[in-house]
Amino acid sequence: MDIRIPRGTQDILPGTSEKWQYVESIWHDICRRFNYSEIRTPIFEQTELFQRGVGDTTDIVQKEMYTFSDRGGRSLTLRPEGTASVVRSYVENKRYGSPNQPDKLYYTGPMFRYERPQSGRMRQFVQFGVEAIGSDDPAIDAEVIALAMDFYKETGLKGLKLVLNSLGDKESRQAHRDALIQHFKPRIDEFCEDCQNRLEKNPLRILDCKEDQDHPLMESAPSIIDYLNEESLQYFNTVQDLLDKMEIPYTIDPGLVRGLDYYNNTAFEIMIEGDGFGAITTLTGGGRYNGLVEELGGPKSPGIGFALSVERLLMALEVQGVELPVDQGIDCYLVTIGEEPSKAGTAILAEMRRAGIQADKDYMDKKMKAQFKAADRLKASFTAVLGEEEWNAGKINVKHMNSGEQQEVELNQLTTYLKKKLESEK
Amino acid sequence: MDIRIPRGTQDILPGTSEKWQYVESIWHDICRRFNYSEIRTPIFEQTELFQRGVGDTTDIVQKEMYTFSDRGGRSLTLRPEGTASVVRSYVENKRYGSPNQPDKLYYTGPMFRYERPQSGRMRQFVQFGVEAIGSDDPAIDAEVIALAMDFYKETGLKGLKLVLNSLGDKESRQAHRDALIQHFKPRIDEFCEDCQNRLEKNPLRILDCKEDQDHPLMESAPSIIDYLNEESLQYFNTVQDLLDKMEIPYTIDPGLVRGLDYYNNTAFEIMIEGDGFGAITTLTGGGRYNGLVEELGGPKSPGIGFALSVERLLMALEVQGVELPVDQGIDCYLVTIGEEPSKAGTAILAEMRRAGIQADKDYMDKKMKAQFKAADRLKASFTAVLGEEEWNAGKINVKHMNSGEQQEVELNQLTTYLKKKLESEK
Repeated sequence: MDIRIPRGTQDILPGTSEKWQYVESIWHDICRRFNYSEIRTPIFEQTELFQRGVGDTTDIVQKEMYTFSDRGGRSLTLRPEGTASVVRSYVENKRYGSPNQPDKLYYTGPMFRYERPQSGRMRQFVQFGVEAIGSDDPAIDAEVIALAMDFYKETGLKGLKLVLNSLGDKESRQAHRDALIQHFKPRIDEFCEDCQNRLEKNPLRILDCKEDQDHPLMESAPSIIDYLNEESLQYFNTVQDLLDKMEIPYTIDPGLVRGLDYYNNTAFEIMIEGDGFGAITTLTGGGRYNGLVEELGGPKSPGIGFALSVERLLMALEVQGVELPVDQGIDCYLVTIGEEPSKAGTAILAEMRRAGIQADKDYMDKKMKAQFKAADRLKASFTAVLGEEEWNAGKINVKHMNSGEQQEVELNQLTTYLKKKLESEK
Repeated sequence: MDIRIPRGTQDILPGTSEKWQYVESIWHDICRRFNYSEIRTPIFEQTELFQRGVGDTTDIVQKEMYTFSDRGGRSLTLRPEGTASVVRSYVENKRYGSPNQPDKLYYTGPMFRYERPQSGRMRQFVQFGVEAIGSDDPAIDAEVIALAMDFYKETGLKGLKLVLNSLGDKESRQAHRDALIQHFKPRIDEFCEDCQNRLEKNPLRILDCKEDQDHPLMESAPSIIDYLNEESLQYFNTVQDLLDKMEIPYTIDPGLVRGLDYYNNTAFEIMIEGDGFGAITTLTGGGRYNGLVEELGGPKSPGIGFALSVERLLMALEVQGVELPVDQGIDCYLVTIGEEPSKAGTAILAEMRRAGIQADKDYMDKKMKAQFKAADRLKASFTAVLGEEEWNAGKINVKHMNSGEQQEVELNQLTTYLKKKLESEK
């Protein structure tokens, strides 16, 4: 028989899972310091949520969703991203009524897109994300960007580059939109079918098209920056001013267009400079979405957020050769010789573990020498050896593996002894 | 518009998510101490995996799976439990070839069963689980049980009751099976249709039937304990002896039958004694599955594991009134008065957070009084107040909220000052 893992998914195995735990622990701690609270939404949602919340014209909704009917005939979809679900929850749970505004939320978890699997792009992938809903203060834009930058820095990543743009408010976008239609319309038949469909629906997304990116009209397309009205321009300037004050460098790229329909004003991406990354230059992107809450049935509430792929982060860390502090050995390996000591070992182990010591023993009926080998493989700091003789005398032999130093300890003092020794090694 | 969360699923919101984080942190730490490593398998698998690994005759496979076709026509199923996936990964990644045997793995994550939603039973629910694959030592059975018991104890749960049984080895099971068929066959037409189907396929599962549990033949059914052969009996006795040595009390219940087909020898459940639990008396169950790895295409490898529902654990903690230590306030709330101080606040905040301080400020253009109210709601340990006057003098006013004590601090010393104060409060 040959049941394999589904295409585009992966097992995260010991040796790798510790790296995931490590970046997760940084993520949770960063979010805590920025006073964002965790929200967990279901793995699947009603399909309509993503059609409305992500946008009917996007590749995600048109081509990439895992949609199915449950046994009750409801159309469900494995979430392709996190924002729509968080906003659905904000509305459904009337969180806009809480005095704590903005509602500062973060999440971690698997997302699903049926794409052609390739390096750094899986069908099941994990996103970390934040959403701050309820405030239109440019300072919250700066905070969200700072959170993303600080997170990457604390993982040890170097050469981070923040790229910024403004998509403007409704009025500015309408003016820009008209200019884009005027710009592309005369030669739209030279563009791909998707772009032809986008022209009247959402011409901004033409700029995002991978197929037509080399068309000469792309380069000369009208820039949103030139169409920002007074208010949008001032908003954008304030965001920049606050990033300056936080000493976070950035560059402005008027070509930065987010693939999703509901963004406005601030848009940003964080990239990695330098070679060797292939397709994974962009690490994360996010931005402001003042229309989304209303679109999903809530009161008019501005929002901003971003999401990052953990797979890409770990790839980038690996390419840069960043050593994550995860390769630690266990505290104590218990070697037993003989039947009684082996059985007694189970209780000794239980006591050590209850005292917080990371400990293990043999369960394969191994000879003494093989047990010592196992202790080495597990990088045990200490080995405790219990033979018949020690057992009868109520003693145990403890060896510090680095120094080779050995000491005989009263069996009922073992845990106290090890705790003290391990504490002094830290 | 009215897009609601799918039936049988829930949002875990701030205020509750901290409790999840807390029990997760205990879980990760317990597994670390017992030297189990985390494995993460995909949310969905090929449907056949669960048909073979969970068992075609189970309710899970027959009635409760979320099965769908992906865009490539493959039949996928949202995992209804964790063991089959872990064993699939053990086989596919040839982990039986590693020198570290048994392979001690743990997992956490959402599982999916299409059941009628009721208290403590969701369609998406979260399991914590461990699997130890590759050893047939009774000491590993005792270790797995100890891990489960220690975990519950450390969450603060009281009145735990461990129930133990042995399902015997193949020979013992065959003897018991024959006895069961003989016992039920004469009056099988008094049983439900499911049980009638089970009689020849898997008569053990008749004992598990909810519908027929009051039938007089249930009480008088032959007990597996009486059919254990010498080897199985000795195995069972050793497990009990080791639990005694670890001072873990238990009772033996020959009626304890696991609902899944692949169990043998040790089976256990952990329950809560006492009233007020309604249907959630059983917290977790697990046991030995020596045939499963082979069933899924690997070499003959014994295994044992258990999985627990986090939803039930949290319900039990709530019923018992256990206070989890999660309701902590932020370290510092920054109150600003005036435009310049407000902008400067963004940078001050960034610095505090980079130094590890959990800090926040206002993003709703609130007046001073409302900002102080927000600081109270967030249970800030300190409030730092920056007005135009302080800002111009390069100073900031810090108030310790518990004592009311105030101090003016040099702005560039704020972080150092707070770090020291917060450290001394711990």
